[in-house]
Amino acid sequence: MAAPSVAVDNLNPKVVLKCEYAVRGEIVIHAQRLQQQLQTQPGSLPFDEILYCNIGNPQSLGQQPVTFFREVLALCDHPCLLEKEETKSLFSADAISRATTILASIPGRATGAYSHSQGIKGLRDAIAAGIASRDGYPANADDIFLTDGASPGVHMMMQLLIRNEKDGILCPIPQYPLYSASIALHGGALVPYYLNESTGWGLEISDLKKQLEDARSKGIDVRALVVINPGNPTGQVLAEENQRDIVKFCKNEGLVLLADEVYQENIYVDNKKFNSFKKIARSMGYKEDDLPLAGDASYASYKAEKDGILQSLARRAKALENAFNNLEGIKCNKTEGAMYLFPQLSLPQKAIEAAKAVNKAPDAFYALRLLEATGIVVVPGSGFGQVPGTWHIRCTILPQEEKIPAIISRFKAFHEGFMAAYRD
Amino acid sequence: MAAPSVAVDNLNPKVVLKCEYAVRGEIVIHAQRLQQQLQTQPGSLPFDEILYCNIGNPQSLGQQPVTFFREVLALCDHPCLLEKEETKSLFSADAISRATTILASIPGRATGAYSHSQGIKGLRDAIAAGIASRDGYPANADDIFLTDGASPGVHMMMQLLIRNEKDGILCPIPQYPLYSASIALHGGALVPYYLNESTGWGLEISDLKKQLEDARSKGIDVRALVVINPGNPTGQVLAEENQRDIVKFCKNEGLVLLADEVYQENIYVDNKKFNSFKKIARSMGYKEDDLPLAGDASYASYKAEKDGILQSLARRAKALENAFNNLEGIKCNKTEGAMYLFPQLSLPQKAIEAAKAVNKAPDAFYALRLLEATGIVVVPGSGFGQVPGTWHIRCTILPQEEKIPAIISRFKAFHEGFMAAYRD
Repeated sequence: MAAPSVAVDNLNPKVVLKCEYAVRGEIVIHAQRLQQQLQTQPGSLPFDEILYCNIGNPQSLGQQPVTFFREVLALCDHPCLLEKEETKSLFSADAISRATTILASIPGRATGAYSHSQGIKGLRDAIAAGIASRDGYPANADDIFLTDGASPGVHMMMQLLIRNEKDGILCPIPQYPLYSASIALHGGALVPYYLNESTGWGLEISDLKKQLEDARSKGIDVRALVVINPGNPTGQVLAEENQRDIVKFCKNEGLVLLADEVYQENIYVDNKKFNSFKKIARSMGYKEDDLPLAGDASYASYKAEKDGILQSLARRAKALENAFNNLEGIKCNKTEGAMYLFPQLSLPQKAIEAAKAVNKAPDAFYALRLLEATGIVVVPGSGFGQVPGTWHIRCTILPQEEKIPAIISRFKAFHEGFMAAYRD
Repeated sequence: MAAPSVAVDNLNPKVVLKCEYAVRGEIVIHAQRLQQQLQTQPGSLPFDEILYCNIGNPQSLGQQPVTFFREVLALCDHPCLLEKEETKSLFSADAISRATTILASIPGRATGAYSHSQGIKGLRDAIAAGIASRDGYPANADDIFLTDGASPGVHMMMQLLIRNEKDGILCPIPQYPLYSASIALHGGALVPYYLNESTGWGLEISDLKKQLEDARSKGIDVRALVVINPGNPTGQVLAEENQRDIVKFCKNEGLVLLADEVYQENIYVDNKKFNSFKKIARSMGYKEDDLPLAGDASYASYKAEKDGILQSLARRAKALENAFNNLEGIKCNKTEGAMYLFPQLSLPQKAIEAAKAVNKAPDAFYALRLLEATGIVVVPGSGFGQVPGTWHIRCTILPQEEKIPAIISRFKAFHEGFMAAYRD
């Protein structure tokens, strides 16, 4: 018999070697192990719960879903409910009416059928109307492709754009690892540009231009520019002027602009507003989006739930940011949007050497120690990319608000101990 | 300003040129156009509705979803319902209990959270128990990867297995175009083996062996064998003996066996049983799967709905098969499983020349004429692959049962006219 020809060491190396996904990497696996240990041997660790600040996964940390969305979803899942009398007392009137409208737009009211490849036309019409209303410019349902989450959309674009290893995509550093992983998976070249930490993670056209020319001089055919706004993991919100320059740059250089705007509702500062690149590209004007309207039965509770979530996130962001900035050797930019803080660590030389001795990046070493001492899970900045020689961690603002003070005090105690232990 | 560097003619050619998807191709687009014409100009065509026999999409053709599944889904999407008194009269008691169990297995009962990358552990445990019960052999939840549909699972495997254009995958011809498209997309080589129409689409090891050796002699590193059982588009169910030979072949040749068993519940003949390749590989034993059990509140209606669907499909398959076999120049194998008939057309030479004159495959020419004359949408066999010089169409058995007699009589009238018009 022949030996099996397929084994881990001869799988597609693009998948096995190049795709690293720090938000689900070593630290998280270690945290899951510690969580099991807490269950089987309570009291065996210096903390009694694991606090996941690594992944932007609010509902896993107790954030409640928005009732209106869930009502509509349940009614569309099981449309027979709409014919029952009891439904009127169980569901809000506007959820019933919204589900009825959605079902009417689905051929045969068949929510279990394959749809048009771009997504159900009636839903794309509603989304186009919402975008038009948000931006003040017309939107066309035929230009919209619905995907199940952002990742398949990014993969689809990379697959279309990347033909071989000489095709490049301009990506911010730090960036969300979905971009580096999907570019590697599709066999292209990541062309980095650095966000400027000293100007609040600003995106500078001069750096874009320099990186583009540098890549072209190496024979890379740069095809697209990725912009994440609000930023992940960096939390900044782009200024309108800056966005105009980016659009102009893409037009001049013949680049596809890939705008990741998933955090458009998560803005925490009064002096910044989210502007879609679609709107910027067509220029000026801003209105409301297509959700329950004032006067609808659910509107008050919908608005209260949504505002409650966003206001609480803003308070958590501010509390964590202040706490980080009060610690020796940590400097944290303001979180203007999204769900993350990305503080910079100035670590003592001794700590850097201790990390090197165990073959770890200094920020990964720090994150591992933090986990072991406190149960707090963060992601090392090296998973997102950073200016060489700088070290960061990404910490979400998602743990429940009442847990934030405990997180801050545990973090503070750990950090002070760490700095004292490795002081140069 | 530079001209835009990205345009349709310089996108990734693997995506743009090589991925053909006949079940959503030219004929379907033409059918959608005719459907619009029927709406705007009623009476302008020789039929008054389009009958979609092209895609395995039962609920779009009026098949009702199974109530139990939809009840559980609605309760999991909106768990607050479980706390309300009215829910007890709106939902069956076992759906309430099943949803409660499922929610308890999801960390934080958070159905809106990112899950473990392989899928929620508690659900994988339940699936493993169902597989163990079906096969009579243990199944391990850690070996199970949940995907949203079969396509992402197939893409994932192709991505893992295919490193470059010298990596080959053995695929049945005819095959479902998901396989040819995903192999092309990931840049590998499709190594065809032919199902034998004269033995009811039998899979012959001697042909597998011959194609494997032929591919190897051309420097192709064959990595895996795709088997679709029950067959799509061919509808056959493999015999246990044949499955054993396939497993042995894969073991001897070091091939990964990719078994597509999505139609395991769709079996229409008494003398064939579905056996999973997992069971075959571990050998012998068969039990029930993990759905409502006799005695549960929903069991009677669940069983009635499910049996009703399958019995009706079996009657539709038989009626269409008989109708095809009663027509001149059509020969159709028995549909033992899945949802398709794949009759062979013996077309007059004049028809083949007429097709050639308009630059179409003869079966595509036939399908287009069928659509224009009757509104019936089928897929040409050339979209699935077939022995060169033979022509087929794939027709689903999914239109509502009361429409089948009309489909048969329209089809018969068209076919007789077509044969008369092109008689040699």
